[in-house]
Amino acid sequence: MTPYSTRRSKLIAQMQAMGGGVAIVSTAPEAARNADSDFLYRHDSSFYYLSGFTEPDAVIVLVAGKDPKAVLFCREKNLEREIWDGFRFGPDAAREQLGFDAAYAIDAIDEEMPKLLADAPAIFYALGKQAKRDAQLQGWLDKLGGQARVGISAPSTIHSLDPLLAEMRLFKDAGEHAIMQRSGQIAAGAHCRAMRMARPGLREYHLEAEILHEFRSNGAESPAYTSIVATGANACVLHYRAGNTELKDGDLVLIDAGCEFESYASDITRTFPANGVFSGPQKTLYEIVLAAQHAAIAATRPGQRFIDGHNAALRVLAQGMLDTGLLDKNKTGTLDDVIANGDYRQFYMHSTGHWIGLDVHDVGAYREKNGEPGEAAPEGQQKPWRKLQPGMVTTVEPGIYVRPAEGVPEQYWNIGIRIEDDILVTADGNLNLTSDVPTAVAEIEALMRK
Amino acid sequence: MTPYSTRRSKLIAQMQAMGGGVAIVSTAPEAARNADSDFLYRHDSSFYYLSGFTEPDAVIVLVAGKDPKAVLFCREKNLEREIWDGFRFGPDAAREQLGFDAAYAIDAIDEEMPKLLADAPAIFYALGKQAKRDAQLQGWLDKLGGQARVGISAPSTIHSLDPLLAEMRLFKDAGEHAIMQRSGQIAAGAHCRAMRMARPGLREYHLEAEILHEFRSNGAESPAYTSIVATGANACVLHYRAGNTELKDGDLVLIDAGCEFESYASDITRTFPANGVFSGPQKTLYEIVLAAQHAAIAATRPGQRFIDGHNAALRVLAQGMLDTGLLDKNKTGTLDDVIANGDYRQFYMHSTGHWIGLDVHDVGAYREKNGEPGEAAPEGQQKPWRKLQPGMVTTVEPGIYVRPAEGVPEQYWNIGIRIEDDILVTADGNLNLTSDVPTAVAEIEALMRK
Amino acid sequence: MTPYSTRRSKLIAQMQAMGGGVAIVSTAPEAARNADSDFLYRHDSSFYYLSGFTEPDAVIVLVAGKDPKAVLFCREKNLEREIWDGFRFGPDAAREQLGFDAAYAIDAIDEEMPKLLADAPAIFYALGKQAKRDAQLQGWLDKLGGQARVGISAPSTIHSLDPLLAEMRLFKDAGEHAIMQRSGQIAAGAHCRAMRMARPGLREYHLEAEILHEFRSNGAESPAYTSIVATGANACVLHYRAGNTELKDGDLVLIDAGCEFESYASDITRTFPANGVFSGPQKTLYEIVLAAQHAAIAATRPGQRFIDGHNAALRVLAQGMLDTGLLDKNKTGTLDDVIANGDYRQFYMHSTGHWIGLDVHDVGAYREKNGEPGEAAPEGQQKPWRKLQPGMVTTVEPGIYVRPAEGVPEQYWNIGIRIEDDILVTADGNLNLTSDVPTAVAEIEALMRK
Amino acid sequence: MTPYSTRRSKLIAQMQAMGGGVAIVSTAPEAARNADSDFLYRHDSSFYYLSGFTEPDAVIVLVAGKDPKAVLFCREKNLEREIWDGFRFGPDAAREQLGFDAAYAIDAIDEEMPKLLADAPAIFYALGKQAKRDAQLQGWLDKLGGQARVGISAPSTIHSLDPLLAEMRLFKDAGEHAIMQRSGQIAAGAHCRAMRMARPGLREYHLEAEILHEFRSNGAESPAYTSIVATGANACVLHYRAGNTELKDGDLVLIDAGCEFESYASDITRTFPANGVFSGPQKTLYEIVLAAQHAAIAATRPGQRFIDGHNAALRVLAQGMLDTGLLDKNKTGTLDDVIANGDYRQFYMHSTGHWIGLDVHDVGAYREKNGEPGEAAPEGQQKPWRKLQPGMVTTVEPGIYVRPAEGVPEQYWNIGIRIEDDILVTADGNLNLTSDVPTAVAEIEALMRK
Ligand SMILES: [Mn+2]
Ligand SMILES: [Mn+2]
Ligand SMILES: [Mn+2]
Ligand SMILES: [Mn+2]
Repeated sequence: MTPYSTRRSKLIAQMQAMGGGVAIVSTAPEAARNADSDFLYRHDSSFYYLSGFTEPDAVIVLVAGKDPKAVLFCREKNLEREIWDGFRFGPDAAREQLGFDAAYAIDAIDEEMPKLLADAPAIFYALGKQAKRDAQLQGWLDKLGGQARVGISAPSTIHSLDPLLAEMRLFKDAGEHAIMQRSGQIAAGAHCRAMRMARPGLREYHLEAEILHEFRSNGAESPAYTSIVATGANACVLHYRAGNTELKDGDLVLIDAGCEFESYASDITRTFPANGVFSGPQKTLYEIVLAAQHAAIAATRPGQRFIDGHNAALRVLAQGMLDTGLLDKNKTGTLDDVIANGDYRQFYMHSTGHWIGLDVHDVGAYREKNGEPGEAAPEGQQKPWRKLQPGMVTTVEPGIYVRPAEGVPEQYWNIGIRIEDDILVTADGNLNLTSDVPTAVAEIEALMRK
Repeated sequence: MTPYSTRRSKLIAQMQAMGGGVAIVSTAPEAARNADSDFLYRHDSSFYYLSGFTEPDAVIVLVAGKDPKAVLFCREKNLEREIWDGFRFGPDAAREQLGFDAAYAIDAIDEEMPKLLADAPAIFYALGKQAKRDAQLQGWLDKLGGQARVGISAPSTIHSLDPLLAEMRLFKDAGEHAIMQRSGQIAAGAHCRAMRMARPGLREYHLEAEILHEFRSNGAESPAYTSIVATGANACVLHYRAGNTELKDGDLVLIDAGCEFESYASDITRTFPANGVFSGPQKTLYEIVLAAQHAAIAATRPGQRFIDGHNAALRVLAQGMLDTGLLDKNKTGTLDDVIANGDYRQFYMHSTGHWIGLDVHDVGAYREKNGEPGEAAPEGQQKPWRKLQPGMVTTVEPGIYVRPAEGVPEQYWNIGIRIEDDILVTADGNLNLTSDVPTAVAEIEALMRK
Repeated sequence: MTPYSTRRSKLIAQMQAMGGGVAIVSTAPEAARNADSDFLYRHDSSFYYLSGFTEPDAVIVLVAGKDPKAVLFCREKNLEREIWDGFRFGPDAAREQLGFDAAYAIDAIDEEMPKLLADAPAIFYALGKQAKRDAQLQGWLDKLGGQARVGISAPSTIHSLDPLLAEMRLFKDAGEHAIMQRSGQIAAGAHCRAMRMARPGLREYHLEAEILHEFRSNGAESPAYTSIVATGANACVLHYRAGNTELKDGDLVLIDAGCEFESYASDITRTFPANGVFSGPQKTLYEIVLAAQHAAIAATRPGQRFIDGHNAALRVLAQGMLDTGLLDKNKTGTLDDVIANGDYRQFYMHSTGHWIGLDVHDVGAYREKNGEPGEAAPEGQQKPWRKLQPGMVTTVEPGIYVRPAEGVPEQYWNIGIRIEDDILVTADGNLNLTSDVPTAVAEIEALMRK
Repeated sequence: MTPYSTRRSKLIAQMQAMGGGVAIVSTAPEAARNADSDFLYRHDSSFYYLSGFTEPDAVIVLVAGKDPKAVLFCREKNLEREIWDGFRFGPDAAREQLGFDAAYAIDAIDEEMPKLLADAPAIFYALGKQAKRDAQLQGWLDKLGGQARVGISAPSTIHSLDPLLAEMRLFKDAGEHAIMQRSGQIAAGAHCRAMRMARPGLREYHLEAEILHEFRSNGAESPAYTSIVATGANACVLHYRAGNTELKDGDLVLIDAGCEFESYASDITRTFPANGVFSGPQKTLYEIVLAAQHAAIAATRPGQRFIDGHNAALRVLAQGMLDTGLLDKNKTGTLDDVIANGDYRQFYMHSTGHWIGLDVHDVGAYREKNGEPGEAAPEGQQKPWRKLQPGMVTTVEPGIYVRPAEGVPEQYWNIGIRIEDDILVTADGNLNLTSDVPTAVAEIEALMRK
C-alpha cells in the first residue's frame, strides 16, 4: 500500500459513512503563459494527494459502493506524441504502478463515466472549479437522467468533496513530515546563502538568483510561490516580488521564499541588514518581531486554539509599538485598548499564520464546525477557532511595517520586518521545520560575516 | 392555507427529514419567438405548484432550518413599466397574497441569497436546467466560501430537488382533480366540435381553428401542446401538427389535442372518418385499438403496475394484427412470439401512457426506487415498474399505424388510429377525465350526423 | 428563379462589392415551453427570406468568391425519425427544390465549414445572436488558424450581415405585397368578427377565441404576436394581453391583433364600444385619434421622412388634448409648447409606427446612414430620419390613454384608444393593407349592429 | 515619442487605411498555479508591444477616426491594495508616463467603451482569445445596437487585429535588436556556465540551476520557456524538461534554454559531452548537425525564402544520414529520394526555425499573403513561403535524434543533438545574436576543460 492508496481507502470509507457514492477528482489544467508557451505544469494538490500522479489530463474516480474501487483516467500511451512531449505512463502502467483497480484513456471518459455513476446515490465533487469538467458532469448526469424510464437513476445529491479532503490533508502523516522537513531545509539553505551573499550594491534579483539556484540544485521542482526579495521601503509592500532595486548600505532586506519539494511547500521569511549589521532602530523593531514570533510559537501546541499564536504575537507587537512610540499612548491608551481598537493594524495588518502543506496556503478549516457543547456561542455567526492537534503544520509569521506617516518616529520609516517559520504541531509541543536559518540578531550577523 | 403554502410546508418537512437546507426554485425564462417578439409566457410547472405565481423573473427560496421560512423574489413594483407591460404584484403584495414569509425584488437576489444560504448544510436545487441561474448559484457559494475564515460556511451538499417535487406532483390532490376534470371537459368539447364540423373538402387547419376557439372561449390559456390534426397518411406521423391537407372522402382524421386550463394539461386523441362513416377496414382496426384501450384502462387501478396497462393493450393489439393479417402468423408465430420478439413495433411503436398534470408529460418516476424486498432483482439494472396508487393521473393511448409495406394488406395502408384518454386512479378503480367525447364507433357516427 | 434565390444572388453581389467572403445565416433554435414540450417552431425571418425553408437545425452559407455558390445545411433524411417527428426534406431534395448549389447534413457542418471558409477574406455573420453557433464559428476559425503554416488562411474580417439583410428586407417586392395584403385581409376579417361578436357580458378571451379561429381557419399559421384584447382600464396598459375581464356596458374594447400568414405579419388595432355605441366622451377622444391617424397616413408617402407621420399625428393629438381639457392650456401653454415640452406624453407615450414584414417589428434602419450632403448635421449624434420610399411597409398607430389623475376630466378616465393600420408606401402615395376593417365611428357602429 | 507610441501611431495609420475604426487590445489574465497561488504574471506580448505596460487588468483602445486617440484602461490607484499587492500606476500616472491621450480605471470599461465605439465603422480585435472579454464586447455592441433609433450605430465589421500586429512585430526595430542581442548574450552566458559546470555524476537539475541563476542574476525576468536539460536518451524527447537523470560518463547533454529579458526571448540549444570530450560517433553526428546549421544560416539572408534555410539544412542532414548508415542507401535511394520521400523524418522530424521576439515562437506569417505575380500557383492551396527581409529574427535549429531501432547502427543509439541560434536578418546578410556560446567541437571541449 502506497500512502496514496491508503488515502483513497480512507476517503472511500468516509464516503461510505455518508451514504456512499462516487468521487470525481480532476487534476489541474495546463496554463498558457504567452502565445503557445505554457507555464511549467503543476498538478492539482488534492489529485496528487490521492494518486502521486503528476501528468495533466487526468481524473480519479472513487466508487464507494458495495464493491469499492478506484479508477484512473489518464493520457493514453502514444509513442509518436512521446517523442515530442515526453514520457506518459498510459492507463495500463499507471494502474499497475499506482495501485488503481482500473484505468482508462481520458478520451474514454464520456463513455465510461455514465456507467460508473449509474444508480450511485451521490457524487462527491468540487463544483465550480473547472468549467469544462462541470459541463462534462452535467452531460453525464443528463445522459443518466434520460434513462430513468429503463430504471437507471442518476445521482440525486452532490456533496462537496473539499471538506473531506481538507480535513484529511490538514493532518500530515509521517511521510509528509519527512518531505516537509526536507522542503524546509532546502529553503533554509537558500536563505542562508542569500544572507551570506548580500552586500550593498547588489540588486534584489541577485539574491533571488541565489535562491533559485539553491532550490533547483537541491532537487526542488520550483519555488512554492513567487519569491519576495524586498529592500528598503519595498519591504512594506506585503506581496512585493524581487525587482531590481539596489541594496543600500543601512537598509534592511526582507526575503520571503520557500520551495516546492516533492510537491510540498516551505515558506520562510527572514529580514537582515544589507551591510551585515543591524542599526539601532532596526534592531529595536526586529527584536520586537522576534519576541512576538517566540510567543506565537510557544502557543503553537496541542490544545491551544489556532488563534492563540496570533493573539500572543499581537500583544508583544502592540506593546512594542507603544514602547517605541510607533503608537502614541496618549492617543491610543493601554495595550488592551490598542488590541481592542485595532490601532496596531497601521503597522501589522496581516494574520500570523496559515496552514501549509501541498499548497503554501494549505486547505483545512480554521474554525470548529459546530462549536463545542457548553461553549458560549460566539458573537454574530462566528464559530470558535479550532484547537491545534498533532500533525497540523502552520506558519508563524509576525511582522512590523512602518510606512512614513505623521506622528511616526522618523527613525523607523520604511522599515519592514517579518520573521516566518513552518511549525509542525507534535504530541508534546511543536517542531520548527525551518530552523536551519537563524533568526537571532547575533547569529544573523555572524552568518553574514562569513 | 392555500394549496401552494401547504405544498411548501410539506416540501420543507421532507427537506428537514434529509438534514435540512435551502431549496431554490426558479420559474421559467421568457422565450424569444422572432425578433423582439416573445412566445406567450409559460411559468415553470414546479415553481407554479409551490406558489400559484405566474410572473416571469421569480425565484422561490425555502429555508428548512430551525426557523423554516418561504421567501419569494419577484419583479419589483414599477408603475412606469406597468403602463407598458401590465400589472405586477411586486414583492409586498405577492408576499401577502401568496403567504410567503418574506419577499424581495429579484434585483436584490445576489445580495440576499448569500445570507439565506449561510451555514445551511445543503442546497436543494435543479442543477443544469438554467445556465444563468447555475452561474449565479456558483457566485453565491463562492462568496460564502470566501468567508470561511470568519466562521461562515457554505452549504457542502447539493440535493436534486427534482425527485422530491416529482413525487409530490405525481399524486394529485382534490383541487387538482377538479381542475384536471375541467381541463378534460373543455378538451372533450373541442373534440366533439371538430367531429361535428368535419367534412370532406375542409383542411386540417379548419379543424384546428375549431379546437383553438373552443379552448380559448372556455377560458383555457392555451393548448397544452401543439395540436395534431392529421388526415390520411399524415396520421402515421406521430407528432404531425395541423397542416393544410384537405380532408378526403374515405379518409380518417386523427386529432390529438388538449388544453391548458389553470396551468393543468388535458391530452385527448380521437380518430374518426372525414365523411362521418367508418369504412370496413377502418372500423376493423379501430375496434382493435378501442378494445386495447378498454383493456388498458381496466388495468389502470391501484395495485396494478404502471406497465400492466401497456401490456394489456399490447396483447389486444398484437392479436388484432395477427387476426387482420397485418402480421403474418407464418412468419411471426404465436401471440406470445409477437410480444417476445417485438414484431408489433412495425405498427405500434410507442408506449401506452404517461403521467399528466401541470406538464402534459408530467414528472414522476415510472419505476420503484429500490425494488421491493423479496422480489427478484430485475434483469440488468432495471428496477420494477411502480404500482399505481390513488391520485395518479395517466394517459391511456394505444394506436395502430399502417405505413405501406410489402406483405401488408393494402386495404389498411395509410390508416393511423390512436385513442387517448386521461385516467385518474381512484381508491377503487379509476375515473376517465375525458369521457365527454365518445370513442364507440356508433356514438362517433351519431355525433357526426348532427 | 424563386424569389429566395434572387435574394441570395442579390446578397452575394453586395458581398462581392464589399470585397467578397462567406455569409453564414442560421435559422432559429427550437424553444422549450414546459418540460419536454416545445413552443410551435418559428424559423428565423432572415433565414426564411433567403430560402423559404422552415425546418429547424438549418444553416445557409453563401460564398461570394470567384465562383459564387449557395450551400444549405439541414437535417438529414431519416425515415425512422420522420415516423416520430414528421417529414424532412433532407439535403438532396432541399437542394433541388430550393435551388441551392450544394446541401449537406447539419451534422457535417464542422467538417464542411472550414473548407468553405478557407482563404475567404471575410465572414458575413450576426455575432452574439446564438451562443452555440458563435462557439462553432470560433472552432472553425481556430481550425483554419492552425493551418497558417501550410498556407491556408482564416478570414480576418467579420462583417455584420444584419445591415445588408435589413436594407434588403425593408423594401418589399411584389410577391411580398401580395402576401402582406392577404395577411392584412385575414386580420381585418378577424377584427370585424370580434366587433360583431362583442357584447357586454362576454369576457376578453371570448373575443380572442374569435380572432384565433378566424386566423387559423384562413390558413394563417399563428398570431404574429400575442393578441391584445383589453376592455375598460386594461386598454391603458400598452402590452396587456387578453385576460378574463368582463366587457361592461359603457366600456370600450381595444383589440391589437394580427396574424402571421406565409410568415408575414399583419398588425391591426381597433377600439370599439362593448355595447355597440360610442358614448360622448369616447367619441370625442376617438375622433381625435382617428384624425391623427389620417394625418399620419397622409404623411406616409415617398419623399416624406419616417418621422413626419409621427409629427403630424402628434400635432392632432396634442391639439385634441388641449381642446378636451386633458391638458390645461394655462399650465402647458400653446400647442407648440406642448410639443416642445413633451407634455403630451402623459396620454401618448409611444411612437406612431414601425416597419412591418416578416417580423412584426421588422428590420430596417430608421435613420439615414450618414445624413445627406448639404444638410445640417443633427444635434448630438443623431442622424436624420430616413425618407420613405416605395416598397416600405410601416404601421400607423396613434393613440390616447387616459389614466385617472388629478386635473384630468373624469369623464375620460380609463379610456384607452389606439387605431392602427399597415401602410405600404407606393410610387404615388400609399396603400392601406388593412382597410377591410372600418375605423369610422358610424361604420363601426353599423357593423356592430349586424 | 517612445517606441510604444510610435507603434500605436503606425497601427492607427494602417487602421485608417482600412477605413478606420477602433482597436481593442487586452493584456493577459492572471493564471492560477495551485490554490490561491498564481504563476508569476506575464503580460500579453502585443499589448506590451503597444504600451510597455506590465500590469494585469489593462486594455488599450486605439481610435482611428477623424480625431485619432489612444486610450488606456488600467487598475485604479488604491493605496490600501498597494500595501498588499505592490505599486500600481493608476490611470493618471499611466496616461502621462506612457503617452496615452486618455486613461480610465478598468472598472469603468463597461461605461466608457460604448462611447468609444459609437458610430465607429469597424472594430479591430482578436476574437476568441479571452472569453470574458468577448462577452464584454458583445455587451457593448448590444448596448449600441439598442440605440439605433436615436441614430447611434454600432460597428458593423470586426477586423482581426492579429495580422496587422503580427506584420508589425515581425520586423524588429533597432531598439528591439539591442534588447534581443542582450537577451541572447545572457542566455549564451548561461549555456557557457552549464558547459563549464557539467561533469558525470551531476543531475540534469544541477545544470538547470546554473542556468536559472545566470538568467536571473543578469536581470532576466524569467526563462523564456521551460528549460530543457536532457542527458542520454532523454535528448531524443523533443520537449523533455530538466529532470533528475544523472549525467553519465560517455553521454551527451542537450540544453535548450533561453531567457526573457525586457520581455524579449532568446532561444539557444547546445549539445555537449558530459565528460568534456565527444566520442567518435557523437562527433560524427555532431559535425553533420553543425554543418547543417552553417548551411541554414548561410541561407538566412534577404531575398531567400523562409524555407530555404530548412531545405539547405535538410540536404546536409540527409546526406549525413546516408553517409553514416543511419539511412540505408539500398533502401532509401539517393539524397534526392530521401528528401522527396521524407525518410529523413525518422531522425529529424521538426522544422529548422521559427520567428522569435516577444514570444519565443513569435507571430508573423510564414507564407506570402497572395503569392507573387507571375509565379506559378503552388500545389493545392499552399501559398509561397515569404522572403526574408532585414529586421526579421528567426532561430536556426537543425538536429538529429537517434532512437534505437532495427537497422540503425548501434553506436548512434540514443544520441540526440540539436544546435540552435537566433539569427537577425540584416541588410547584407545576417547577425547571430547568440554566438557568445561556441558550437565548434574544439571550442566546446576547450571551454569544458576550464
Ligand atoms: Mn506565509
Ligand atoms: Mn399523450
Ligand atoms: Mn404595431
Ligand atoms: Mn527554438
